[in-house]
Amino acid sequence: MSYQLYYSPGACSMAVHIVLEELALPAGLKPVRVRDGDTAKPEYLAINPKGRVPALVIPGEAGVLTELPAILTFLAESHDRPVLLPSDALWRGRAQEWLAWLAGWMHGTGYGLIWRPHRFSADPDDAQALREQGLNVVAQANQDVTARLAQRGPWALGDQYSVVDPFLLVLFNWGGLVGLDMSEHTAWIEHTRCMLQRPAVNRVLEREAVTIPL
Amino acid sequence: MSYQLYYSPGACSMAVHIVLEELALPAGLKPVRVRDGDTAKPEYLAINPKGRVPALVIPGEAGVLTELPAILTFLAESHDRPVLLPSDALWRGRAQEWLAWLAGWMHGTGYGLIWRPHRFSADPDDAQALREQGLNVVAQANQDVTARLAQRGPWALGDQYSVVDPFLLVLFNWGGLVGLDMSEHTAWIEHTRCMLQRPAVNRVLEREAVTIPL
Repeated sequence: MSYQLYYSPGACSMAVHIVLEELALPAGLKPVRVRDGDTAKPEYLAINPKGRVPALVIPGEAGVLTELPAILTFLAESHDRPVLLPSDALWRGRAQEWLAWLAGWMHGTGYGLIWRPHRFSADPDDAQALREQGLNVVAQANQDVTARLAQRGPWALGDQYSVVDPFLLVLFNWGGLVGLDMSEHTAWIEHTRCMLQRPAVNRVLEREAVTIPL
Repeated sequence: MSYQLYYSPGACSMAVHIVLEELALPAGLKPVRVRDGDTAKPEYLAINPKGRVPALVIPGEAGVLTELPAILTFLAESHDRPVLLPSDALWRGRAQEWLAWLAGWMHGTGYGLIWRPHRFSADPDDAQALREQGLNVVAQANQDVTARLAQRGPWALGDQYSVVDPFLLVLFNWGGLVGLDMSEHTAWIEHTRCMLQRPAVNRVLEREAVTIPL
């Protein structure tokens, strides 16, 4: 019995994929392609009624575990080699602060507005204004991420690599995908370079056929 | 030296206030009233550049801790009587799943659209459509919360009271504030009744001058 991960290539589920690989955990990989509408199909909604990825099947547990911050925390707490969350309560709080802000604000609101404007307004005429606002939110969030990494890097939690970092790699990649200029984000580029030196990261990028532009 | 909490009466910061009271922690209370625009004032932005509540001052730590899920997790992990997060990794994951969904989706998107439509579109003409969509999101989320509590209550994690429950109390209250009919949500009403039997909860409601309609 092993974990099974429902993922879409390059989506935020890639952070979970990287963490599974870092922890050297065997996992069944179940592609559910967002672009092909797979996450909205009845067969997937029967598994995860939220219609989103990632979703993690845990042996012996009824019902998938959802929500990126929850899955990352669960995996880091269930497997302690390598350590992917600090033991100190304050640093753990800082990790959760990163995850909540990245997932709830930057991804949920920023990229949500850009890629899923219909979630925010039923009027298709609003889509352009929503997308523009999404780009503003993401551009500002990109500045904030870079400023924090510049202040205390190379990882999100300073010297300690953690489950926050694979999520930052996904978000760096998305910045380029929506047409934002990532070349000014020096500290984040350095973070991405560090990520690309990790064998686990490269195995996942290859498996999901994702190329990070640097 | 004690914690200091920046809060706005009845806001999601009330969940932190309740947890501080449950843990019998002395804390300095710093009101920053959202309705009066206090969270957008330069003096508060100097403390929390995100311009939101809650923010927690931690003795000896430079920079407030932000993001509700992070503050709740930090407090529960730093103080173990009473236990407000399970020790089991899977149940901890379920707690984080609740927090991420409640904070990121139900609060961030649902109530965000209703109360802060300008976060989502710079065009004031879009506000009505955004508010309507926000009400749809919240109404559906209310159904989902109630269904989960009906399936496994009385608390969010079943038999174990946790930091998730004070957040649910805040969200029950908000449902009525935006004009949704909460009388159909039987399992959630029962959850609220259980909350109102807790002395810590009543002390906070009195201090923040919040009355939960039941």
